Amino acid sequence: MTEFQPSADEIGLLQSLCARGPDADGLRDLYARVVWSHLTEPGDGVAGLLIAGLGAREALVAAAHGGAGSPSGIEPKQLQEARKRWMPRLSRDAVRGSLEVAARTGLHLLAPDDAGWPAKLGDLDLHAPHVLWVRGDAAAPSSTRPSVALIGARAATSYGEHVAIDLAAELSASGIIVVSGAAYGIDGAAHRATLAAGGTTIALLAGGVDRPYPAGHADLIERISAAGAVIGEVPPGSAPTKWRFLQRNRLIAALADVTVVVEAGWRSGSLNTAGHAAALGRPLGAVPGPVTSAASAGSHRLLREFGATCITTADDVRELLGATPASVDTARADADRPRTDDTTRVRDALSMRAWRISDDVARRSGMASAEVEAVLGLLMLGGEVEQSLLGWRRLQTVGR
Amino acid sequence: MTEFQPSADEIGLLQSLCARGPDADGLRDLYARVVWSHLTEPGDGVAGLLIAGLGAREALVAAAHGGAGSPSGIEPKQLQEARKRWMPRLSRDAVRGSLEVAARTGLHLLAPDDAGWPAKLGDLDLHAPHVLWVRGDAAAPSSTRPSVALIGARAATSYGEHVAIDLAAELSASGIIVVSGAAYGIDGAAHRATLAAGGTTIALLAGGVDRPYPAGHADLIERISAAGAVIGEVPPGSAPTKWRFLQRNRLIAALADVTVVVEAGWRSGSLNTAGHAAALGRPLGAVPGPVTSAASAGSHRLLREFGATCITTADDVRELLGATPASVDTARADADRPRTDDTTRVRDALSMRAWRISDDVARRSGMASAEVEAVLGLLMLGGEVEQSLLGWRRLQTVGR
Repeated sequence: MTEFQPSADEIGLLQSLCARGPDADGLRDLYARVVWSHLTEPGDGVAGLLIAGLGAREALVAAAHGGAGSPSGIEPKQLQEARKRWMPRLSRDAVRGSLEVAARTGLHLLAPDDAGWPAKLGDLDLHAPHVLWVRGDAAAPSSTRPSVALIGARAATSYGEHVAIDLAAELSASGIIVVSGAAYGIDGAAHRATLAAGGTTIALLAGGVDRPYPAGHADLIERISAAGAVIGEVPPGSAPTKWRFLQRNRLIAALADVTVVVEAGWRSGSLNTAGHAAALGRPLGAVPGPVTSAASAGSHRLLREFGATCITTADDVRELLGATPASVDTARADADRPRTDDTTRVRDALSMRAWRISDDVARRSGMASAEVEAVLGLLMLGGEVEQSLLGWRRLQTVGR
Repeated sequence: MTEFQPSADEIGLLQSLCARGPDADGLRDLYARVVWSHLTEPGDGVAGLLIAGLGAREALVAAAHGGAGSPSGIEPKQLQEARKRWMPRLSRDAVRGSLEVAARTGLHLLAPDDAGWPAKLGDLDLHAPHVLWVRGDAAAPSSTRPSVALIGARAATSYGEHVAIDLAAELSASGIIVVSGAAYGIDGAAHRATLAAGGTTIALLAGGVDRPYPAGHADLIERISAAGAVIGEVPPGSAPTKWRFLQRNRLIAALADVTVVVEAGWRSGSLNTAGHAAALGRPLGAVPGPVTSAASAGSHRLLREFGATCITTADDVRELLGATPASVDTARADADRPRTDDTTRVRDALSMRAWRISDDVARRSGMASAEVEAVLGLLMLGGEVEQSLLGWRRLQTVGR
């Protein structure tokens, strides 16, 4: 079974693409994965199952020759059908061609056992990509910096682009990586604003990364690769298809820590990305817009039907990332707390059952509203009171 | 203890206001409640507790003379302080004056034991109003028709008013009562659109219902009373105060089945109404707007922090009211379901575990996307498949 062994100069090409040492076994495995990326459409779960069971190389043998040795979880008929999909695509020339193009255009090649492989993609399980073809910084996708997918419709309004620009500029200026899909509209605005802010941005393409799509964004995609990375899972030269766009969306959702839909119509493709984010258990946000704007109908749908968090500012996105504001040092606040008569009067004017607005507390305590509010603020820092829309309430405190 | 007995002509005035029979005992009770509405500020829980314990008349005696016989739940000191608030306001002349003004201006007077008393106010418990003074149709507040509070900021934008008008016109045209606060901005737009649609609308005022507030809405308030009701809990002639506005908000929330904040700034008073609605367990909706508009910041806050439902259309409000679209007759759908080869092919192309988009199903079944989508629609009616953002999935069905 030497048919899936790389030739000596293919080994050389692979080495230049992945910057690994001369680990012949690892390179043969990488070669098999590249072959797989030619044979399958993105997200092919049968291939995923086969590779998980046998390893990329043995799985190729099973794909080519069938046989009884198929791993558990794949029915013989299922494998037979999959082989019919895969085998017509087998072409050593095409594989070699993609490696040559990749080397010529300075691409990087990442596989799951590379240090630079983004661990987050593991959440895609059997639907993870075989390899990633990267234009730009091969370390960007595995960066430990927090990342946010800012996505939305191609047919964006100036409102949507405005919000995308504001969010991208502010988030990327604070070190957050902005992930998107390089499309017209919201995606382009998010990438551009990140570049303008000197931040890092990653674009996931549906086709080969040597084929900028849309063509009108060729310059933008070039600039993204210079300040971050442009990534695809299909081999160089591959055309973007509708299926590949939908599968590309799963990569956006998987590579970003949170996904925010900035502006999307009722049937926008970005809802598909949002669905992937939700399925992966990633936090999902949506920016509302005028209900009179069809361009925001998809965002509102996410808020209504899919429990997306309402995003109005970059801080809301940070909260979704789990980055909370520096927590109050309550112990210190407690030590500093003034124990004046005023504090006692405000405390006595509060109830533990009923919410009271500060004017009511002022009335009951015989103090001015401004004084009362200052004291309430200190009591809140000390964890003695809580505030809601209905007003203020005393909390049961220990040791009082 | 005859000091709180109505005189013969006061009895006559009361009879004309509440259109009850000559039930002397009931009228004396009503008189005592009117006195209470003079003594207390709206929402006074101590008065509520006293009246709940002793009845309105005996509670008045306790308020006037104190004594050891205070009902459980009120500490002596608490009652003592409350009496200091209440007693300086006791004036038989003021009470008589309010009855005279009410009779002269054709008001109706409702008390909790009247048939026309809205049962929903019972949810306010000890904070329920003593009486309601009604200008217009005294039966409107207890109507069994569904009701929606459409509220929002005085400083509304043309966007907010536009949405308020659309929602009010469509909801009221289908028989839903529109409740609001007669203020400038969103409230006024909601009332006006309801009137224009020939619907029923109710305005809750913070002051006496004979004192239209704001003055610029005197004509509007007059028209509301002609096509519904204008309601207040403070006696005629009373000025609206900040406290009374906040308490008026609890009446809006309690009288409406659901509350929808159409447009509200970060600190808008309508958030207080929303808080009351939430505290009462009433469904709460908020209409989003541009995140760049400060006028919508309060609505977004309700969506983010208070779990308000995102409202974009009148249908969304109806859903909040529990009025779901006519449910599909699945039995009939099942009988009509075509059992053609196409159905079988689509069924076989679906998975029970993985979501598949219709294009994928088309590919797997060898059918055209449009055909597949038609079959999927029928299968969904029959409860065999479900749809999500990720695509379609087969459901486990019984007896197949």
